[in-house]
Amino acid sequence: MIYLDNAATSFPKPKSTYSALWHAIKFASGNAGRSSHKLAQAAADTIYNTREAIADLFHADSPEGVVFTYNATHALNMAIKSYVEEGAHVLISDIEHNAVIRPLEIQRERGSLIYDTFSTDGDIEANISSRIRPETTCIISTLQSNVTGRIIPADILSRVAEKYKLTLILDASQLAGHGEINLKRTPCDVLCAPGHKGLFGIQGVGFAIFRDLKRRKSFIEGGSGSDSIDPRMPSLLPEGYEAGTLGAPSIASLRGGVEYVKKRTVEEISEQIHGMTNRLIDRISSINEAELYPSGGGIVSFNLKGRSSSLIASMLDEKSICVRSGLHCAPSAHKKLGTLNRGTIRASLSCFTTVKELDLFYKSIRNICDEVKSVPSSSI
Amino acid sequence: MIYLDNAATSFPKPKSTYSALWHAIKFASGNAGRSSHKLAQAAADTIYNTREAIADLFHADSPEGVVFTYNATHALNMAIKSYVEEGAHVLISDIEHNAVIRPLEIQRERGSLIYDTFSTDGDIEANISSRIRPETTCIISTLQSNVTGRIIPADILSRVAEKYKLTLILDASQLAGHGEINLKRTPCDVLCAPGHKGLFGIQGVGFAIFRDLKRRKSFIEGGSGSDSIDPRMPSLLPEGYEAGTLGAPSIASLRGGVEYVKKRTVEEISEQIHGMTNRLIDRISSINEAELYPSGGGIVSFNLKGRSSSLIASMLDEKSICVRSGLHCAPSAHKKLGTLNRGTIRASLSCFTTVKELDLFYKSIRNICDEVKSVPSSSI
Repeated sequence: MIYLDNAATSFPKPKSTYSALWHAIKFASGNAGRSSHKLAQAAADTIYNTREAIADLFHADSPEGVVFTYNATHALNMAIKSYVEEGAHVLISDIEHNAVIRPLEIQRERGSLIYDTFSTDGDIEANISSRIRPETTCIISTLQSNVTGRIIPADILSRVAEKYKLTLILDASQLAGHGEINLKRTPCDVLCAPGHKGLFGIQGVGFAIFRDLKRRKSFIEGGSGSDSIDPRMPSLLPEGYEAGTLGAPSIASLRGGVEYVKKRTVEEISEQIHGMTNRLIDRISSINEAELYPSGGGIVSFNLKGRSSSLIASMLDEKSICVRSGLHCAPSAHKKLGTLNRGTIRASLSCFTTVKELDLFYKSIRNICDEVKSVPSSSI
Repeated sequence: MIYLDNAATSFPKPKSTYSALWHAIKFASGNAGRSSHKLAQAAADTIYNTREAIADLFHADSPEGVVFTYNATHALNMAIKSYVEEGAHVLISDIEHNAVIRPLEIQRERGSLIYDTFSTDGDIEANISSRIRPETTCIISTLQSNVTGRIIPADILSRVAEKYKLTLILDASQLAGHGEINLKRTPCDVLCAPGHKGLFGIQGVGFAIFRDLKRRKSFIEGGSGSDSIDPRMPSLLPEGYEAGTLGAPSIASLRGGVEYVKKRTVEEISEQIHGMTNRLIDRISSINEAELYPSGGGIVSFNLKGRSSSLIASMLDEKSICVRSGLHCAPSAHKKLGTLNRGTIRASLSCFTTVKELDLFYKSIRNICDEVKSVPSSSI
């Protein structure tokens, strides 16, 4: 099995992920923040230690600003619905995922906001600046495209948000764990990320890191384990945004994953992934039948001429190679690439991907080219 | 260690919970619904099998109506915010949890709905009927109090909702797995429950079972793995309400838990828990210093005269006995009991609780009574 679908969810995970998960299930099995007995306290400690590990990894001001969610989509919805005011004009990049587009679109339909895209080509700062209107209050941008691997420099986004006093919400779904994110150097209002991709938690955990520890509009309301008598959510973070029982086991697994990343260092992981990706890009670009799209930073997107991305992905699956085909929930990036009708084959790497696996992947693509030679091109 | 905090989260879990979790992490480690390769397909199968197991346990019409969430609070927020129309009048029971009160209260403050409580004493059907106004559209009720264990008969709620053509949203947080819930016999629009209590999943999973497979207002929007080109969420369930990566491992653990419950049968579990609870009630009521509140169905709430609930819980913790003290996120139930200022000590059982554990718990309470005799009563 060669797993090249790490941009969807990483696999394998480091051993520290599984051991932290197992430890939490066995020894920290109470309900954190609900009771005061040892098992509940152990769950609360596990969760707090994970807040600290994440705050430390991203150089956040405080562990209390780290709010746990079900996934990055949940975190982005929380950030958008809590921070974007009624009647606002929002600027988003032209390569956003549906986790940003869909929550904005529903509010646009209801007439509560409008949004507009800025180009990520050329001078991003100038592109954003030229789109700002008097009613613009917020910039939302991914830090890395999940289709091309393109990295949007956080310093540009941070600077322009600061200059125009705009709220900045960043989506680190692809970059977290794969590239340096330093909230001291490049601050933002909310940084959202999944736990199960580059940070190696299991699925079922994401988070948002808030700069301001005072809650804005609440998003999900319910039991917070504190101030039970008050019919409103607590006004401070993290409790103000964390309603109901937290997933202590998945949060613990994330701590295990983050520990691995910190030990290896993001710098080293980043260098390794970029090197491996460039190797794969070179290989794929040597195949005549391949149409390679802009790729990098762990993600390689391509098609085979005249063949649908899903056909090739399924032929690779038969050879026990896991990639993703289609639109990857990011139609705007495909609009930009001209691949909205067919999607792309996306191979995505982690620091566990080996040179041998990439070479076997390349050979399999070559073999598939030979296999489909005799078959007439599909109409895609 | 004697664990009597199963109403917060159950512990231990049956072996089938852990083995299903482990299997999912090792063999179903792709991202369900995102890619088509074997590992992603295995994750999708795991999730679908859990939908089937839950639909079967609750006699729901279709596995597609089972929507997975982070916890029961997330499910209740989804149900309320998706199903309660602007300007509605909502009726809730007088023993609701903050997972119902807080999402309603925030909307009441914004002027988008009003709500009112009905008494769960006496003739519930008459109580509800007398509160219905022309603008009433919805009844929301727990099926079992998390403070007293009091069960609200689903057939009454179902009948009155049917009679007045009202939307019925039920909170099965305490009853799921501990008492029979049959959606064929006592239908409702949305049944919400956690996965980590009586159904023995790990923390980080809940669900809502919808009668109607057409989505109403969306709640969290994002990638759904399908219709990526559409900026709106899919219109059908479950995808219409499931945005972002699902927690396949916690969902798998829930399937393992549900399998155990089905094998034992809810009827047998219910009988066992009720019998054990009555035994504990008898024991506690024999203690002179104990003030026992209405209790049953797995939950026993009491105080020791003149002592704060948190002090006694912490003394029990020193003896390695886990209970919960305080308000249990359900202030309205405490208002009814007259315990809003001090809360209660709550011992909550599961089908893994043994007679020996309950006897030791009883003895420890007696010992604590002796220990605190010489200490002056606190002002609570």
